[in-house]
Amino acid sequence: MAFTPDFDSHPIEATITSAVPLAGWVEVVWSDGRASRFHHIWLRDNCPCEQCVHPVTREQMFEIISVPADLRPQRVWVDEEGSLAIAWPAVSDVPAHESHIHPGWLRRHAYDDASRQERSLEPVTWDASTMPEPPTFDGRAIMEDDDALYEWLVALRTWGVSVVQNVPCEVDAIADLVARIGIVRETNFGVLWDVRSEPDPISNANTSLALPPHVDLPTREYQPGLQFLHCIVNETEGGENILVDGFRIAERIRAISPADYAILTTVPFQWANRSATSDYRWDAPIIVTNADGSLREVRVGNWLRAPLDVPFGVVEAAYAAYRRLFELTRADDLQLRFRLQPGEVMAFDNRRALHARGAFTDMSGRRFLRGCYSERDELMSRLRMIERERRACREAGAVSATRRQ
Amino acid sequence: MAFTPDFDSHPIEATITSAVPLAGWVEVVWSDGRASRFHHIWLRDNCPCEQCVHPVTREQMFEIISVPADLRPQRVWVDEEGSLAIAWPAVSDVPAHESHIHPGWLRRHAYDDASRQERSLEPVTWDASTMPEPPTFDGRAIMEDDDALYEWLVALRTWGVSVVQNVPCEVDAIADLVARIGIVRETNFGVLWDVRSEPDPISNANTSLALPPHVDLPTREYQPGLQFLHCIVNETEGGENILVDGFRIAERIRAISPADYAILTTVPFQWANRSATSDYRWDAPIIVTNADGSLREVRVGNWLRAPLDVPFGVVEAAYAAYRRLFELTRADDLQLRFRLQPGEVMAFDNRRALHARGAFTDMSGRRFLRGCYSERDELMSRLRMIERERRACREAGAVSATRRQ
Repeated sequence: MAFTPDFDSHPIEATITSAVPLAGWVEVVWSDGRASRFHHIWLRDNCPCEQCVHPVTREQMFEIISVPADLRPQRVWVDEEGSLAIAWPAVSDVPAHESHIHPGWLRRHAYDDASRQERSLEPVTWDASTMPEPPTFDGRAIMEDDDALYEWLVALRTWGVSVVQNVPCEVDAIADLVARIGIVRETNFGVLWDVRSEPDPISNANTSLALPPHVDLPTREYQPGLQFLHCIVNETEGGENILVDGFRIAERIRAISPADYAILTTVPFQWANRSATSDYRWDAPIIVTNADGSLREVRVGNWLRAPLDVPFGVVEAAYAAYRRLFELTRADDLQLRFRLQPGEVMAFDNRRALHARGAFTDMSGRRFLRGCYSERDELMSRLRMIERERRACREAGAVSATRRQ
Repeated sequence: MAFTPDFDSHPIEATITSAVPLAGWVEVVWSDGRASRFHHIWLRDNCPCEQCVHPVTREQMFEIISVPADLRPQRVWVDEEGSLAIAWPAVSDVPAHESHIHPGWLRRHAYDDASRQERSLEPVTWDASTMPEPPTFDGRAIMEDDDALYEWLVALRTWGVSVVQNVPCEVDAIADLVARIGIVRETNFGVLWDVRSEPDPISNANTSLALPPHVDLPTREYQPGLQFLHCIVNETEGGENILVDGFRIAERIRAISPADYAILTTVPFQWANRSATSDYRWDAPIIVTNADGSLREVRVGNWLRAPLDVPFGVVEAAYAAYRRLFELTRADDLQLRFRLQPGEVMAFDNRRALHARGAFTDMSGRRFLRGCYSERDELMSRLRMIERERRACREAGAVSATRRQ
């Protein structure tokens, strides 16, 4: 079977029924009836042969500028292994070449509308009525079982919030949990950091004050994608935990005030930490969207805003939009409220879910949380690795079933 | 003197000559003739008093929604210390309040056009003729002297490239150098990582192949902002170092083909690492601009591109734009070429400067580089901290000069 330019398995869900070269592309029809068109230049670019892709690193060595932009196949066929085969002609000083593209790989990378739609992942937004309590998972199962890990991470990707129970009340337990996902992101707070009321706090987090809904480190260009807060001791009164879906706030503003939404997605606001030892600042819109208008992140943290620094004529509109957002962070019908218990970890998307804390009665040392950060793409990589393993098992099963016949 | 809501010093470059409340703002005229207008709501938002800002953490406790949007001062004056003083009236259930804003702080945060212009920092792009060799700095001085550190970091911020000489040829020396700036960013490569030719490479970087111009980790949502490559041994033939200003490439494309520039700044391309143990992917335009159209980052790394996954109708235009970019990464007149010597560190902005390596004669173990990553905002924070210290010295000098009088 044709080599694939990655370390993944590509079980064959549909075989290639026909492959017809047309003017600018090859039309492939699959055994389930789907038709996918592949541009000639795309096919040449994705040749997985050992000259084009380094056989050990699986990284591409072929360079697109080494062939003419209008390269066309000499012949296209389905080879005896079911791969899409293409003979490329010699053109001036470019030698002839032959590509064999694995059908399972090709199907997974098809870019017809149906295939692209199938791969799209949309976050699902929530409010207090659709999310009366956070999705909850068992830490012991997560530590031992990839299926349990997978289920947790899919929920975290989809909803942006979760609670993991049965995490040992030890100061480094959270590091073990996050190691199941990927790398901890070190910041000026350290690798792991404490949240407790302190006499000489470096941040309002380390007081007994209420903390209004916020993301951590909006002062950094790269806001941490994931945050983990492990409750080790919680004997105080108050200190209730609150989560708000920042994406739902964004959707609501978009619906009720397109003008405010336009301000919040385009005008950079200013953020700055207050510290004797560092001075992080960043300018960014409060709501950031992707190229297709979908939501990428929110940046909210009232006490880490720096003085607004926008052109004079924009100040009033910026404050008006900010007030609207601020009010929504306090809207009761958006707030998921619960009380984290010792042995529980709140895990959330720090660029989407705003977290907040009620004020608590300060009896120093009797409320102790331990936290750390990681990134969204660590989570995505872990999910893909579990899926990869499942595909490998499926393929191995298919192969052994074939052998048994 | 009025408290300021940060840990900085604010030497008074100009005093307040007059402060006049107008309909929506206060017009401040400074002793050097500049006029700055401050909206009422902005002034109330930036009240630095101990009720509005936590006196220890210097983080804001005041919340903008606690006052009416149309709050207007009752009285504005310059107090006996030279601060801008504002008396806010009691409005319904909001009590009266008084703000005293330090003139040095106010001047530094003024948002009239002249003040904003004064603060803007533009990168300066370069090509092989304007940058015949990288700006070079002395590692021993950097380790000991904040002024030398400052000079290096300003160059790195401005040009995106630099070489530091006289760094000890020891495996951890680069960590000491980067600790002068801030936190090392750990990735799947580790905290510090090696570049040497290996029999079973995990990346083309660890072969003796030429590496075309690229940034590291374009497969990550957050591409590392800074990269450091420390040459410890270099006895091979070949392996020449090449740097290209990705921002200059972007400017050139913008000038010669606005259509290609539009594609490269808006169409997400796909990136994926190839690994048996991780699966990082990201979709992003190759050129990313800020809200004002200025350049933020480029994402280039031919062998880490994943198969293009864009709507069918966009494929041809995307390939055409990509070819143009690719060709420019090879343009001789853009390539800064040099040979890194043992004891030298190449430090560059990994989201702006593309780096490349010529193929070398493989004599395993005789070419050994050690690398690590950090972030742009670590650099910016360090620069601000040095500037802060300088301001504190200046202010202390001014105070002691006053006392001597």
